[in-house]
Amino acid sequence: MRYPSGRHFLQIPGPTNVPDRVLRAIDRPTIDHRGPEFGRLGREVLSEIRHIFKTRNPVIIYPASGTGAWEAALVNTLSPGDRVLMFETGHFATLWHRMATRLGLQAEFVPGDWRHGVDPALMEAKLAEDKARSIKAVCVVHNETSTGVTSRIGEIRKAIDRTGHPALFMVDTISSLASIDYRMDEWGVDVTVAGSQKGLMLPPGLSFNAVSEKALAASRHARLPKSFWGWAEMLEANKTGYFPYTPATNLLYGLREAIAMLLEEGLENVFARHNRHAEATRRAVRAWGLELLCLNPAEYSSSLTAVLVPEGHNADELRRVILEAFDMSLGSGLGKLQGKVFRIGHLGSFNDLMLAGTLSGVEMGLELAGVPHRKGGVQAALDYLAQEAASQARPAARSAA
Amino acid sequence: MRYPSGRHFLQIPGPTNVPDRVLRAIDRPTIDHRGPEFGRLGREVLSEIRHIFKTRNPVIIYPASGTGAWEAALVNTLSPGDRVLMFETGHFATLWHRMATRLGLQAEFVPGDWRHGVDPALMEAKLAEDKARSIKAVCVVHNETSTGVTSRIGEIRKAIDRTGHPALFMVDTISSLASIDYRMDEWGVDVTVAGSQKGLMLPPGLSFNAVSEKALAASRHARLPKSFWGWAEMLEANKTGYFPYTPATNLLYGLREAIAMLLEEGLENVFARHNRHAEATRRAVRAWGLELLCLNPAEYSSSLTAVLVPEGHNADELRRVILEAFDMSLGSGLGKLQGKVFRIGHLGSFNDLMLAGTLSGVEMGLELAGVPHRKGGVQAALDYLAQEAASQARPAARSAA
Amino acid sequence: MRYPSGRHFLQIPGPTNVPDRVLRAIDRPTIDHRGPEFGRLGREVLSEIRHIFKTRNPVIIYPASGTGAWEAALVNTLSPGDRVLMFETGHFATLWHRMATRLGLQAEFVPGDWRHGVDPALMEAKLAEDKARSIKAVCVVHNETSTGVTSRIGEIRKAIDRTGHPALFMVDTISSLASIDYRMDEWGVDVTVAGSQKGLMLPPGLSFNAVSEKALAASRHARLPKSFWGWAEMLEANKTGYFPYTPATNLLYGLREAIAMLLEEGLENVFARHNRHAEATRRAVRAWGLELLCLNPAEYSSSLTAVLVPEGHNADELRRVILEAFDMSLGSGLGKLQGKVFRIGHLGSFNDLMLAGTLSGVEMGLELAGVPHRKGGVQAALDYLAQEAASQARPAARSAA
Amino acid sequence: MRYPSGRHFLQIPGPTNVPDRVLRAIDRPTIDHRGPEFGRLGREVLSEIRHIFKTRNPVIIYPASGTGAWEAALVNTLSPGDRVLMFETGHFATLWHRMATRLGLQAEFVPGDWRHGVDPALMEAKLAEDKARSIKAVCVVHNETSTGVTSRIGEIRKAIDRTGHPALFMVDTISSLASIDYRMDEWGVDVTVAGSQKGLMLPPGLSFNAVSEKALAASRHARLPKSFWGWAEMLEANKTGYFPYTPATNLLYGLREAIAMLLEEGLENVFARHNRHAEATRRAVRAWGLELLCLNPAEYSSSLTAVLVPEGHNADELRRVILEAFDMSLGSGLGKLQGKVFRIGHLGSFNDLMLAGTLSGVEMGLELAGVPHRKGGVQAALDYLAQEAASQARPAARSAA
Repeated sequence: MRYPSGRHFLQIPGPTNVPDRVLRAIDRPTIDHRGPEFGRLGREVLSEIRHIFKTRNPVIIYPASGTGAWEAALVNTLSPGDRVLMFETGHFATLWHRMATRLGLQAEFVPGDWRHGVDPALMEAKLAEDKARSIKAVCVVHNETSTGVTSRIGEIRKAIDRTGHPALFMVDTISSLASIDYRMDEWGVDVTVAGSQKGLMLPPGLSFNAVSEKALAASRHARLPKSFWGWAEMLEANKTGYFPYTPATNLLYGLREAIAMLLEEGLENVFARHNRHAEATRRAVRAWGLELLCLNPAEYSSSLTAVLVPEGHNADELRRVILEAFDMSLGSGLGKLQGKVFRIGHLGSFNDLMLAGTLSGVEMGLELAGVPHRKGGVQAALDYLAQEAASQARPAARSAA
Repeated sequence: MRYPSGRHFLQIPGPTNVPDRVLRAIDRPTIDHRGPEFGRLGREVLSEIRHIFKTRNPVIIYPASGTGAWEAALVNTLSPGDRVLMFETGHFATLWHRMATRLGLQAEFVPGDWRHGVDPALMEAKLAEDKARSIKAVCVVHNETSTGVTSRIGEIRKAIDRTGHPALFMVDTISSLASIDYRMDEWGVDVTVAGSQKGLMLPPGLSFNAVSEKALAASRHARLPKSFWGWAEMLEANKTGYFPYTPATNLLYGLREAIAMLLEEGLENVFARHNRHAEATRRAVRAWGLELLCLNPAEYSSSLTAVLVPEGHNADELRRVILEAFDMSLGSGLGKLQGKVFRIGHLGSFNDLMLAGTLSGVEMGLELAGVPHRKGGVQAALDYLAQEAASQARPAARSAA
Repeated sequence: MRYPSGRHFLQIPGPTNVPDRVLRAIDRPTIDHRGPEFGRLGREVLSEIRHIFKTRNPVIIYPASGTGAWEAALVNTLSPGDRVLMFETGHFATLWHRMATRLGLQAEFVPGDWRHGVDPALMEAKLAEDKARSIKAVCVVHNETSTGVTSRIGEIRKAIDRTGHPALFMVDTISSLASIDYRMDEWGVDVTVAGSQKGLMLPPGLSFNAVSEKALAASRHARLPKSFWGWAEMLEANKTGYFPYTPATNLLYGLREAIAMLLEEGLENVFARHNRHAEATRRAVRAWGLELLCLNPAEYSSSLTAVLVPEGHNADELRRVILEAFDMSLGSGLGKLQGKVFRIGHLGSFNDLMLAGTLSGVEMGLELAGVPHRKGGVQAALDYLAQEAASQARPAARSAA
Repeated sequence: MRYPSGRHFLQIPGPTNVPDRVLRAIDRPTIDHRGPEFGRLGREVLSEIRHIFKTRNPVIIYPASGTGAWEAALVNTLSPGDRVLMFETGHFATLWHRMATRLGLQAEFVPGDWRHGVDPALMEAKLAEDKARSIKAVCVVHNETSTGVTSRIGEIRKAIDRTGHPALFMVDTISSLASIDYRMDEWGVDVTVAGSQKGLMLPPGLSFNAVSEKALAASRHARLPKSFWGWAEMLEANKTGYFPYTPATNLLYGLREAIAMLLEEGLENVFARHNRHAEATRRAVRAWGLELLCLNPAEYSSSLTAVLVPEGHNADELRRVILEAFDMSLGSGLGKLQGKVFRIGHLGSFNDLMLAGTLSGVEMGLELAGVPHRKGGVQAALDYLAQEAASQARPAARSAA
């Protein structure tokens, strides 16, 4: 294995490349979490983070990684034996379903092929069937990190609305928030689950529940046992910028910096950048003659792209070759996709040339690992990126004239 | 308020002053938590951390702050309605008891005066009474962060043993681990709860459950709902150095560095240093003519010292004055001690001159805030510290001769 | 030697404790020194640094440590064999004189006792004697880092003016700039020499020449060979924010941050803080019964205090004991003061409690090393600091009312 | 201009991308430069740095940037009016010549076309002509940073030897050291000039003179005035690991780390990596149909590649477009090459995928800026890099079998 000179390419779909500004923000002495300086920090991040979720409702910040926020969403709103409807869009949806079951919920798991998002029509049908309104919540993963497939949250909301069903709508945005357009309030989501280590460009260690009025109302009667995850005490303490137990202060420094960076760039520009990189990646994949896991173009993920390796080849061997030769980490196939796909993360703090380096590593790796493919994937991506850059540069040139 | 030149004095009893070595370790790019480099990191910290607990049993590391580890200890070992015995040693014991109740346990709370630790004889009596062996666990806070009082875990173990009672023995070492002598295996503790932000000199964001064989056996039948906190999946994944969900990678970098520092200094030297600073602090307090909250010298805490302010004076006002004039944060009185005590943290990465600065800030603050006291507290501390330094230096000088 | 837990006390009179804000600013990727981002940085620091010198003239920033700026001042303004008048105020004045001689100047060295600054009357007499106006420059060290004695630059200026002598006035402010009041323009200084690692709170590696119109005029005819140090190319390139050769980019990041901090605190507050710490230190020294090196109260340094150890005792042994027992570095006696004095640095990013810790280390060290002294130095300092804090707090309280 | 997400591509030929390990090493509190800890640091770096120069002679480390080391080489070894022979290989050779002239040397400048290195035969002829042996030194730039052309130092040494001429041989390795094979002792170089910000992967601020016995002997009689740059005091102080004036302590921390990294990778592997990246770059340039500035394949630089833009196009406009669209800095044409070439730096801490990203930025930039070229440069580079990776991987695979 070559000595790792230069920068590692961390192209898994999260944790993502933490920008130096964020790392330096984190690398400061911890302060008194009950003192006035902390109060200012707390009030600022609790207020600003809402822009990222596009919500006016409160956002709860846990000193815990993302999986904890899944649990928080469930235990705060539901009671033992409650029916919830979940959809098998991939590995993480599967894990969330398993969690719900473990916590004592009656979690129905609508089967899926891991190549499509949640079908709004199916959601509508399922809820329409539930005449007794016994389903208390429907849970959807916005962007399946294991497959690179998104679900259309806005359309699903409309499908729910058509049934008039009162179930809570919970959405996991762990690998979409701050990367793919997401509108909590507009789309009527009741609980949004998120984590720090993807589009928010932080190390892992913070997770989020953004909660609607309706979710708050539900939480007052929910009987699943809870303490650490309890919303009520959090919201009470958060009013003044504090937390009911020791917060992850240093990550909050980083969060403040990350939010500032996202707002400086502009969320719509952030989304456009991710869309551009995803499209460039797909063009490369097609040029290589490889197959995208995601089958529905309306559900392509802008955070990551999962690519099938041809029958008879092992994606993990390809990943090993690429790591050893080019010091790049790619995402593995998870669960039933193990060995069958590799995942290219192109989210977070990222740019065109980093993507070009990433795709170059994949193209060279395919050759080294003997995976059948055509050359020219990088070239296809560059053609597209250059064209996009040209179209962006032009109006500016005009306005300068 | 003066402009904060120089270093802030963070003298709350945790989070503590994070050493530069640890901050710089944390301030590195996040890596792939499923890659080989992470595996090496994981195996190393999971193995080395056991020295800190003085255990040969596994230590579980959560990407969550300390309060979560309390919950983990309970939900992994107990079932709804189980009887647990807890002791009111202070604010944190009270919070742990409240948590147990919320989680659906039948948690008996043995009253206390917040000025003493758990009385081994009382523990013995309580367990002896329980002829039915219906108490499933006894929970003790080793060092009450709210009071500066420790409980004598070794003696309590013996008291339990005298009754032959099979209850699990759970100990919170959040503000004692790596500061005050603690011996999990020797003292027969079943679950040790700990956090990163005190003696381990890390920012908040990691917490720990060290678990005995007996606790593991109990966990196989425990029926409180759990998922995020579940030990079984953790232990399974930890075997190869990995975690079942995204770990707090950057804090694990810091943990590796912190463990290295503690072992370089030597745990016994770490404890001796804390004992010295605690004794110097108490001498200062006595010289000021103020009263220590802790009444039993056998239970003095080496992590922090809680000091009563005279009747008619407000400890929080004193703390405010000290923060504004001298940029030092002290711990507040919590719960029923609010306004009545201030707490001086002297744990973590700390030395004689930092303590001298700390006590100087308190002495000057007492004057500024008009709290009746005698001068000379700092002088008393310096006399003791100089004498200790002399006695340590002498053998070295001799051996050099 | 004890394991160095906690923070080292770096109480030499420079390099000083670099604040975290500055260290983090430096710890960023280097950028293209010919690109637009650098140009903005260059223009900003070149403009802002002038506030620190209290000048409207240009300030040249060398990517070199302070000794280089001495050389730059001489080679840019003088020709081989030129007469310069220098004053033996201590070790650094002696080194500057030796440098001048080595560079081929005829450098007269007015003897001194290392316990006084430059006597304005002596300056006046010396220049008045020089009827031929053959002295081209007079060089004074504002604050002698080796002795803790300042020279009164404003009064010296007046003395020069009384003679009408046209010699250039060069002042070394290496350990006074941004610590002790200094007014380049008001005091008519022609070349100010400075470095980064003292009051500017940076690591060593930058040095400065602030240059008057008169100095610039002289530089056009100066014939000492020069290239690296040449002002002309520097000033030309600086006009647009760039440098004629690779600048120390990362230290310039730090400089930007350090200037911001100084201006946030306010220069007059910075000076007041240094005055307060120097007075507190002198009170401690007197209480110990030790002797200050500086004999003239009008010349006390606010950056550092040099203290004589009693006859028969070795200051370096005392310093060794303090370093080993308390992890504090003090300044040694330099040149003919070796072993006779120790120097306490109290400049840069520093506060009351750090000073209390520092003086505590000295007081305990005196005891450990067996240096005869009375106790009570720290107490004397605390009494003074508390009184100052009280008098500062009062007006604020009033204005809040 | 796009918001700069992700990492800037700093592809100028120095300063180079400073690795995080080095940045974090620098970002530590400054220590007492006269204390024992510094002594250990000083001794270590002064000893280890010699491996990088491949010398057993002393290496002097200045707290100054590279241009200063040019001056140091001259003023320590030469006297006013001495004849030196210099060769016009490019912009930096021109600047060094100008410096020599300014310092009062009689510096002959052998003309060159900026597209070739120093011709050994010409060196031989020039020295053979000098029957009087009046030339005191010959000065050669190993790697011309402005042109991407190297001079063959080993062959030049042989040419000098053939004449038996006693002139000192001075070599500037500012952009070759630790990137391109360099052997001070084997090649009989008397003074090697180097800087920190290129192959040594540090920020600018340190520079070096490695000095032979012969150079030291010459320095005893050299009469150019000097003080800051004087070798004698440096070498005296360096014996114990210290410096005669304040060193750039924080950069020395970084130097220790950088040397460790270079030795971990192995210098020969470092050179091979640079050779590979240079060859890949040239293949890209040829595929684009553009012209390399360097005309002699035996003199290709492995640190950087200078590329001519076609007549009628402006290289600086191309660079501006690339910076704005792709956040990549390239080197500009310097001196008489302004606007005619751009320079791709591929030295320092760098790897295949960073190069792929770099070349992708150039290829897309050529298109955006409308510079005539053929596509396929990146593809040509990838083909070569993949082939090299395959050939490196194979032996390892074999040995594992």
